[in-house]
Amino acid sequence: MDNAVATEFNGSGSVVGERVARVDAREKVTGAAIYTTDMRLPGMLVGKILRSPLPHARITNIDVTRARRLPGVKAVITADDTPKIKFSVIPQLADKLPLAAGKIRFVGDEVAAVAAIDEDTAEEALEFIKVDYEPLPTVFDPEKAIQPDAPRIHEHLESNIARHAFIEIGDVQKGFAESDYILEERFTTQTQAHTCLETQTTIATFDSSGRLTLWSTTQVPHDMRQRISHACNLSLKNIRVIKPYMGGGFGRSCKMETVEPITVFLAQATGRPVKISLSRQDEFYGTRCRHPFIIKVKMGAKKDGTLLAKEAYVVMDNGAYNSYGPAVLSYACTWFCALYRFPNVKFDGRLVYTNKNYGGAMRGFGDVQVTFAHESMVDKIASELRMDPKELRLKNANQTGDMTANLMRITSCGLKECIEKSSEAIQWEKTRKETSKHSSRGVGMACMIYTGGASMGSGVNYSGASITLDWSGAFTLAMGASDIGQGSDTILSQIAAEALGVSIDQIRLVGTDTSITPPCAGTYGSRVTLCAGNAVLRAAKDARSKILGLASGMLDADISELELRDGKVLVKKSPSSSIDLAQVAASSYLKKNAPIVGVGYFNEPPQTKDFDPITWYALPVPCLAFAAQVVEVEVDRETGKVNILRFIAAHDAGKAINPMCCEGQIEGGVVQGIGLALTEEVKLQPDGKIMNPNLTDYTILTAMDIPPISSIIVESNEPNGPFGAKGIGEAVLIPTAPAVANAIYDAIGIRFTELPITSEKILKALKERGENR
Amino acid sequence: MDNAVATEFNGSGSVVGERVARVDAREKVTGAAIYTTDMRLPGMLVGKILRSPLPHARITNIDVTRARRLPGVKAVITADDTPKIKFSVIPQLADKLPLAAGKIRFVGDEVAAVAAIDEDTAEEALEFIKVDYEPLPTVFDPEKAIQPDAPRIHEHLESNIARHAFIEIGDVQKGFAESDYILEERFTTQTQAHTCLETQTTIATFDSSGRLTLWSTTQVPHDMRQRISHACNLSLKNIRVIKPYMGGGFGRSCKMETVEPITVFLAQATGRPVKISLSRQDEFYGTRCRHPFIIKVKMGAKKDGTLLAKEAYVVMDNGAYNSYGPAVLSYACTWFCALYRFPNVKFDGRLVYTNKNYGGAMRGFGDVQVTFAHESMVDKIASELRMDPKELRLKNANQTGDMTANLMRITSCGLKECIEKSSEAIQWEKTRKETSKHSSRGVGMACMIYTGGASMGSGVNYSGASITLDWSGAFTLAMGASDIGQGSDTILSQIAAEALGVSIDQIRLVGTDTSITPPCAGTYGSRVTLCAGNAVLRAAKDARSKILGLASGMLDADISELELRDGKVLVKKSPSSSIDLAQVAASSYLKKNAPIVGVGYFNEPPQTKDFDPITWYALPVPCLAFAAQVVEVEVDRETGKVNILRFIAAHDAGKAINPMCCEGQIEGGVVQGIGLALTEEVKLQPDGKIMNPNLTDYTILTAMDIPPISSIIVESNEPNGPFGAKGIGEAVLIPTAPAVANAIYDAIGIRFTELPITSEKILKALKERGENR
Repeated sequence: MDNAVATEFNGSGSVVGERVARVDAREKVTGAAIYTTDMRLPGMLVGKILRSPLPHARITNIDVTRARRLPGVKAVITADDTPKIKFSVIPQLADKLPLAAGKIRFVGDEVAAVAAIDEDTAEEALEFIKVDYEPLPTVFDPEKAIQPDAPRIHEHLESNIARHAFIEIGDVQKGFAESDYILEERFTTQTQAHTCLETQTTIATFDSSGRLTLWSTTQVPHDMRQRISHACNLSLKNIRVIKPYMGGGFGRSCKMETVEPITVFLAQATGRPVKISLSRQDEFYGTRCRHPFIIKVKMGAKKDGTLLAKEAYVVMDNGAYNSYGPAVLSYACTWFCALYRFPNVKFDGRLVYTNKNYGGAMRGFGDVQVTFAHESMVDKIASELRMDPKELRLKNANQTGDMTANLMRITSCGLKECIEKSSEAIQWEKTRKETSKHSSRGVGMACMIYTGGASMGSGVNYSGASITLDWSGAFTLAMGASDIGQGSDTILSQIAAEALGVSIDQIRLVGTDTSITPPCAGTYGSRVTLCAGNAVLRAAKDARSKILGLASGMLDADISELELRDGKVLVKKSPSSSIDLAQVAASSYLKKNAPIVGVGYFNEPPQTKDFDPITWYALPVPCLAFAAQVVEVEVDRETGKVNILRFIAAHDAGKAINPMCCEGQIEGGVVQGIGLALTEEVKLQPDGKIMNPNLTDYTILTAMDIPPISSIIVESNEPNGPFGAKGIGEAVLIPTAPAVANAIYDAIGIRFTELPITSEKILKALKERGENR
Repeated sequence: MDNAVATEFNGSGSVVGERVARVDAREKVTGAAIYTTDMRLPGMLVGKILRSPLPHARITNIDVTRARRLPGVKAVITADDTPKIKFSVIPQLADKLPLAAGKIRFVGDEVAAVAAIDEDTAEEALEFIKVDYEPLPTVFDPEKAIQPDAPRIHEHLESNIARHAFIEIGDVQKGFAESDYILEERFTTQTQAHTCLETQTTIATFDSSGRLTLWSTTQVPHDMRQRISHACNLSLKNIRVIKPYMGGGFGRSCKMETVEPITVFLAQATGRPVKISLSRQDEFYGTRCRHPFIIKVKMGAKKDGTLLAKEAYVVMDNGAYNSYGPAVLSYACTWFCALYRFPNVKFDGRLVYTNKNYGGAMRGFGDVQVTFAHESMVDKIASELRMDPKELRLKNANQTGDMTANLMRITSCGLKECIEKSSEAIQWEKTRKETSKHSSRGVGMACMIYTGGASMGSGVNYSGASITLDWSGAFTLAMGASDIGQGSDTILSQIAAEALGVSIDQIRLVGTDTSITPPCAGTYGSRVTLCAGNAVLRAAKDARSKILGLASGMLDADISELELRDGKVLVKKSPSSSIDLAQVAASSYLKKNAPIVGVGYFNEPPQTKDFDPITWYALPVPCLAFAAQVVEVEVDRETGKVNILRFIAAHDAGKAINPMCCEGQIEGGVVQGIGLALTEEVKLQPDGKIMNPNLTDYTILTAMDIPPISSIIVESNEPNGPFGAKGIGEAVLIPTAPAVANAIYDAIGIRFTELPITSEKILKALKERGENR
């Protein structure tokens, strides 16, 4: 890792660390920002997808003749009109076709698609497609699907187990033998939906030379380009992917899914631009969700609170296809093993196919589920030991310089400080005392570990940036990274401005268009700040050295005597001797020197021989992020409603490039985490259809429901991060659900092990305990 | 000059020199190409300009209240709503405001502008603006305007003479004294309009952060950005100029004019996107034209045909403002002095203001007018000497290695070959013999000299290019140069493909957008092939060396053992040992090397101390282009109509990168030149209004009128050109009019000295000679 990059610029502090207004703020608040959903091209058609109404069936016939005859319909396609190339996040595990051929495996599986002159015509055409199905036996419960006699979902496999990850580190049996207390519990987590404000939308158009341009709500434009090339059998060089402004991602748009290739096929079939924008209902059926987990945890500790051993037996519900499932299982294993200084660790997880909508990437993936179980168990151990759960966590907290049990080096760690600062903020001891009598009020805490800059688990972790000195003396920063609403365009502009000694309005960021921006693996794994940030810093360093080289001749001074500040190159010892960057630019353009372009690239850290591709043991991560969240709740014993009185989230961000953006991430994450804890769940009917595919029945927190949230930013100064920063985009929601569950336990003495902890469940539990009649 | 660049790549000949289909061919023939005129933005308003109906007047009052009250009108602006910053091509000579303040100087001068919801409303609003004028005495004739008592057009000047260029080289008096024959003649050329298919169109929009995006029919996007910054008093960094597909330029769009700043002012005033697309009539009044010249030429020769001395006394009609006038005068002086090996040369030219629409840049500017006079005179001398005009030209032709009289080095010269090959093609001697009896059929010839890659006359001649190796193994070529219809995107792609050893479909050209393409002075002065071509070649060289450097490690071979061919890096001695460029790209992206980006830049040649900024003596040009055109005509003595029977155009293109594109340029240029010779003229009424501001009365050649044209490409292998190439975009029309005039003389024995040589003029002349009653 090129630490020199991070340390060389200490910055004047004039831009990095400041609460700079977001670069897209004005565009967004005035409504001027153009999202993919807003776009219309001349002659553009509307695409719609026909989905299977059954959860498991053989397709015996599809008759599209009536639909094709409907006036205004320009194309009706089925699998037979496509190259039938299967895809998945991990290409070797590809099991999904853009349009189903022969068989469907969940309610929502794509069967056919139409392109028509308007939405009504397209909808009507869908009704005119006649599909004959031969129903097959179904299985929705992963524990049943795992049985040898369960209906087989993918014929080419021997069972419904898509992947099995097993690891033991240390000696778990010995660890339990040496423990004074051993506890076991079964936890379950639900299906959560991303509910982005902007639904998944794609526009595809071919030019006369057969070159495809795709506008898409994607977190990963460069990756999308490669996957479209494969799935649609198109030459990579003829594909251009553009990401306009985007209304949220949360992992939904983390890789190519079915919408994008289907849109491309329709554009090919019609020779016209085609747009597919999913309806909210379609978004529930046709985009991925958070995988539900069943987690049996066993944990052992000594009397003094030393955590000695833990094991997890996990059944993970893949749904009908792989998508991100295998990677989520690996990540679940990774973070379960890594949290706290357990010497003995075991993880035994199975990824199991069922006839349900399949899971994908979702904020904090894998870690969210196991951390709910893990942090609930730690709380339970503390109760059992009659020890303050805060103290138990502090005693076992990960520390800078540690190797985690599964061999990740912790280059910086603010976990203890997060625990301490969040406790202080809520007056932990005082509040616990007031709430310790099952007074209906309670406080709870949970911690977490996660990557602060993705990993090389998939073999790549690349980000590129280029910075050009413009004639005006301002800089153009071209980035492959995608701002999907989280604010990364602002963060990256700040990093460039700081390193180049200019104000942020001197940085013009050119957003993601695969034709004109350097490649970047994209936005996922909390990676943009660290990975793209390092690329920007390196590009800035490159540009800076070229600027100083040129200015040296103009100012007749050695490079070492120069500095870049306030849009000028100054001679340090006599700052009145200076030239504007505009002069340097003019000189570079006109006096036969090359134009000044800095290029930066990041793709780290390399995999080591210890790395295991299934359990992700020895995962190469650039850094690790930590957090502690503390919450005070009041449970209404009449209604079962949980009122969140105070929420404190302390996060190790390495260095807050923009504290306001960190707070934005934290507040958004906590809100999504509370939804996971209390209200959000995609529910199935017995026929496999979704009971609540809309925002009336699938209840996310509204602005009215959001509690007071205090953000605490801990700065651990990560040596591998740009200006010490690490990513916190997912960390922000990982400990939320267990913190809330632990607070509820503190409030009413009942430990809930199934998410979400709805009012109904609370009322039922109180009733079982004899309260409320 | 970096000759190494040109010679290092001899190329496999697989792309350069081939008749490759234009890269934009499919888009254009299918109608898919989007021009500025086609564009519509959401909420876009229509802008219209109110023009002065008088040629010279004081504005005593403008009342816009009624216009502002009209429903649908969003803004009505006059000079008082603008920063009133004067502009001109040469900033020191700025004399034009985007909207007139206090005074107007020609019919068409911009007085006010409106933005409204649609075209009808905008038109109506113009009628509601009440302007009170106090008429002033006018002058339309430059020879009258030059008189001391003429009405003064610009009060701050002492006379109507905007510039005076005088130079004498050698001893002209002595030259004439030594001559056996001395001839004198007065020639005049007319006002010619560009008549681009796409009229001048601009769209301006500001984003919420005050950043301007301008889509424009411009030949010079990067220059436009700078001029808009100045004229609109906007920070350069906040301006982005984009050039979509463009329907012709011919110099009309060579610099910022009034339309662009007015559109910007309207967008500022309304906060909405505004589009101004000139009507055809507006195009005649509101864009520039070819300057009319009065040229008195005196030429002396010895009996043996040695040309000894020449002088020109020029009165150039500037029209009401400067624009390109001073540069056109300089260029007229330059090329008059340079053609043939005259040892004694004098040029005395005055640029004179009149109350007419002002001249601007137009294809071959300055050279077209003086070459008409010059080549008519050479023909006349040949007659006088009873010498074959072809032989006279051959005897005095410029040659490689010469310095021109005015100190330009001729690094390559195909003039003799052009004369010989065009003569052969038309069977010169045989045809002359048949036509020598004033048989109504005649043949004529004319030659020319011009730059083949602009010059440093204005102090800049820069072009930049960047080439990025894409993941697919293809290349992205980002260019600041503008394809305005002439085909330069194809030429530059061919140069890149040849230098990188790939086919042309492996080059994706990103067109002109000042935010994302390297700066380029733009498209004018026949400069793109040579200047931008060299930038591309240097960028390709840079990329190639990076590719070979990386491949060297991958193939375990020294760089010197490698070559780039067919999209692969090969070990020369064992070509089976190779890697695809896609592999090199993947390695560059994933293995911690930087992405492969080649950058190239050109800004040459430097000015020397001899350079004179008025007469452009010792003009620094990268190379010179030459041509000879030969034409056979038949004059219909009944109607005066000139039928062109055969047209042969032989052009020294250095090296034809794409012979088909050269032929396209030649054919288009000859057609425009024939229009200049025979039909095209913007005519004024006595009140200063244009008599024929439309394509019915202003007669350009239609497809039906185009004669058979044979193109001959002479390859002189210019050492400073990419693969030996030079530009011919303007050369193609420069000798056309005198060649036609000389042929008419050969046909009917009458020498016409006033362009255009219309049927009416011919009939009149025949009548004066006693023919046709």
